[in-house]
Amino acid sequence: MKLELQQWPQRVRNLCPLVHCITNYVTVNDVANLLLACGASPVMADSEAEAADMATIANALLINLGTLNAATVRSMHLAAASANERGIPIVLDPVGVGATRYRSCTAGTLLREHHFALIRGNISEIKALAAIVQSGQGADSTKAGSTKGVDAEASDLQDALQGRITLARELSRSTGALVVISGAQDVIAGIDGPAFVCGNGCAAMQDITGSGCMLSALLTAYSAVAWQAEGNRQKNLLHAASAGVAAMGICGERAEKLNQQHAGGNASLRTHLIDSVYCLDRLDGAVNLSVVI
Amino acid sequence: MKLELQQWPQRVRNLCPLVHCITNYVTVNDVANLLLACGASPVMADSEAEAADMATIANALLINLGTLNAATVRSMHLAAASANERGIPIVLDPVGVGATRYRSCTAGTLLREHHFALIRGNISEIKALAAIVQSGQGADSTKAGSTKGVDAEASDLQDALQGRITLARELSRSTGALVVISGAQDVIAGIDGPAFVCGNGCAAMQDITGSGCMLSALLTAYSAVAWQAEGNRQKNLLHAASAGVAAMGICGERAEKLNQQHAGGNASLRTHLIDSVYCLDRLDGAVNLSVVI
Amino acid sequence: MKLELQQWPQRVRNLCPLVHCITNYVTVNDVANLLLACGASPVMADSEAEAADMATIANALLINLGTLNAATVRSMHLAAASANERGIPIVLDPVGVGATRYRSCTAGTLLREHHFALIRGNISEIKALAAIVQSGQGADSTKAGSTKGVDAEASDLQDALQGRITLARELSRSTGALVVISGAQDVIAGIDGPAFVCGNGCAAMQDITGSGCMLSALLTAYSAVAWQAEGNRQKNLLHAASAGVAAMGICGERAEKLNQQHAGGNASLRTHLIDSVYCLDRLDGAVNLSVVI
Repeated sequence: MKLELQQWPQRVRNLCPLVHCITNYVTVNDVANLLLACGASPVMADSEAEAADMATIANALLINLGTLNAATVRSMHLAAASANERGIPIVLDPVGVGATRYRSCTAGTLLREHHFALIRGNISEIKALAAIVQSGQGADSTKAGSTKGVDAEASDLQDALQGRITLARELSRSTGALVVISGAQDVIAGIDGPAFVCGNGCAAMQDITGSGCMLSALLTAYSAVAWQAEGNRQKNLLHAASAGVAAMGICGERAEKLNQQHAGGNASLRTHLIDSVYCLDRLDGAVNLSVVI
Repeated sequence: MKLELQQWPQRVRNLCPLVHCITNYVTVNDVANLLLACGASPVMADSEAEAADMATIANALLINLGTLNAATVRSMHLAAASANERGIPIVLDPVGVGATRYRSCTAGTLLREHHFALIRGNISEIKALAAIVQSGQGADSTKAGSTKGVDAEASDLQDALQGRITLARELSRSTGALVVISGAQDVIAGIDGPAFVCGNGCAAMQDITGSGCMLSALLTAYSAVAWQAEGNRQKNLLHAASAGVAAMGICGERAEKLNQQHAGGNASLRTHLIDSVYCLDRLDGAVNLSVVI
Repeated sequence: MKLELQQWPQRVRNLCPLVHCITNYVTVNDVANLLLACGASPVMADSEAEAADMATIANALLINLGTLNAATVRSMHLAAASANERGIPIVLDPVGVGATRYRSCTAGTLLREHHFALIRGNISEIKALAAIVQSGQGADSTKAGSTKGVDAEASDLQDALQGRITLARELSRSTGALVVISGAQDVIAGIDGPAFVCGNGCAAMQDITGSGCMLSALLTAYSAVAWQAEGNRQKNLLHAASAGVAAMGICGERAEKLNQQHAGGNASLRTHLIDSVYCLDRLDGAVNLSVVI
């Protein structure tokens, strides 16, 4: 497994996938630099007048709900339909889902109408999303969620690992997407087969706005490579996502070490994190991934 | 006084207020990282479809006019109405008010229709705002202002300290908000009672885009704490704002020192500024605040 | 020539031009900090309600198509008409033109309806733009382009220098604008007279999102100075643009050196690049500009 994993950073650089992002304006610059850092080519285009067109030349599509509005939601649907038609992978980052009815409805409708290859969120977001999908919520939802803004609830963070794996599998079953739950121990799980748990990373990553958005972007680039690789696509995607989660975690650890050398704060950590992704050419012994059957 | 002030950074970390921001897309990333740095939890949501909902789960609301448009102005009104109804504090940053009729009208209308806890701007913006409020300008204003973009006019910067305190008090009287005028000597003044003058900070902060936006965001987090503290709310808010202004100024001084060690420019200064806020746990002897009765 | 060139950074600081930017939300923060770094004063205003007003107080206007939409395109036209009426220079950065029909149509229509002082793009963008202008494409264009997102095509990068100069001249003739093609060797050429080729810069600049946007912003500030200088305006603009391109390239080289000292990545490079512009007071022997008659 490790032998196969360690090549992923280089594979992304070899393909240099064009990643079309419809994402929020808070962290969009970091998302673009992160994609460049890992060897992908980012393009942001969220106008209804070109979203579908742009998706036709991309290798993968990222949809991030961070600062959605009526116009960008229409563009998300146009781009997703175009991406599904062309068969390129779509990644969903349901930022803050559960915090407002609008986010919940939008996420539910997107998942009903399009096929997503991968969904990544924190535990609170994935719980909210699973509840939305299970209840068949969508455009007519009337229940506002309980997520506290865009950060995970303290109570949710106490959920046991097995419960989080089960949650990921359930959401995977009802959506067909591979599910990544970020946290101190990241969970990567599909409908069935092995799940992965990653212990890489550092706690201070949650003090950077957009660390989650950047991970979703990285996973979109990795998904583009998985999509073009030979063999079983679901297995390739599982490996790509696990490699991507480990890569981001290792870079977080390196960034934290660099930060400690000069007593930096969250702004320096962000710089070091993107720099570390830029310098990462292969996954090595630092990988902390375990398999859960 | 100093004994009371020095606890403010820790108080913010203890509450970890959720700060709902409707702000400009130029400096929004810095605003989010600054809020995380001081221990708050930022959430940006400016769609009409969720602005009011998001305000109902927040501890404070920040409205920043930096890149306003028809849709976000409607969201500002919806969020402000929701915030006033729930009784959480709203901070207004009237970026560039006076530069165009649209900014002047929008600011005037917002101040007429909602109650703001605090207004922060540079001397040119506060002068423009005071003139707008005094003349009853609003949606039907026809006079374009004289502000040069978003930076303070050189001529305005010569205004004597006493004149700036009087200006702040007048705007406070006509709006009910505590008024903060940023500059080499920051002024913090309410309708009556003592005013504070802060001499902390460094001149190069004006070479960072968004140093004002970040201060307004910090003051919003501090206001959330003042709102929940025991005792007289106006007095608490005055202390919170003075502590916040001093905190940002001290961090600017530390950032400048770090910058001088490696001959950095404005980009490094921004990083050091946010880092310094991240590392600030208490206000100490560096505080340069004086009281004006 | 060099004697004249070396004063440009200081000239910009002396004028401190107000630069009105209608630009994309991906790199807008870097654009603002870059403008502050070179001594200009940035203001971003893209609402239809104030775009024309803001242009009336600016010294120059930057239009960047990075994340265009129906509303901002209308604002671009309003601001451009206002800028042309007042006679201030407009710079066009046709980000990603050729990637979608919408970008091609918008760029074609803008160039037909307004006069631009300067156009800056990478080789793929300028080729796409030249084809659009030549074919008279505009609102009714039906041909999608072949640009790969916002980065230059590998095949286009092989074009010979003379071909790129000819291309720049042709686009200059059909639009009346000075044309800058960025690359390993930047080309600066007008309708006739000498063209300049600049060899400054470093390859890693293309790993920073917005290095092109920042250069366009710098050139807008330099254009504002050229516009107010005595003598022949076209010649002044050619010198301003050449000085600006060289300035950015030299800062890229300095940034790369700083980056190598601590094994940084693209995030650090961005910080060092803006810092270097902040510290640049005169062009010196590092300038690598040659004249092609």
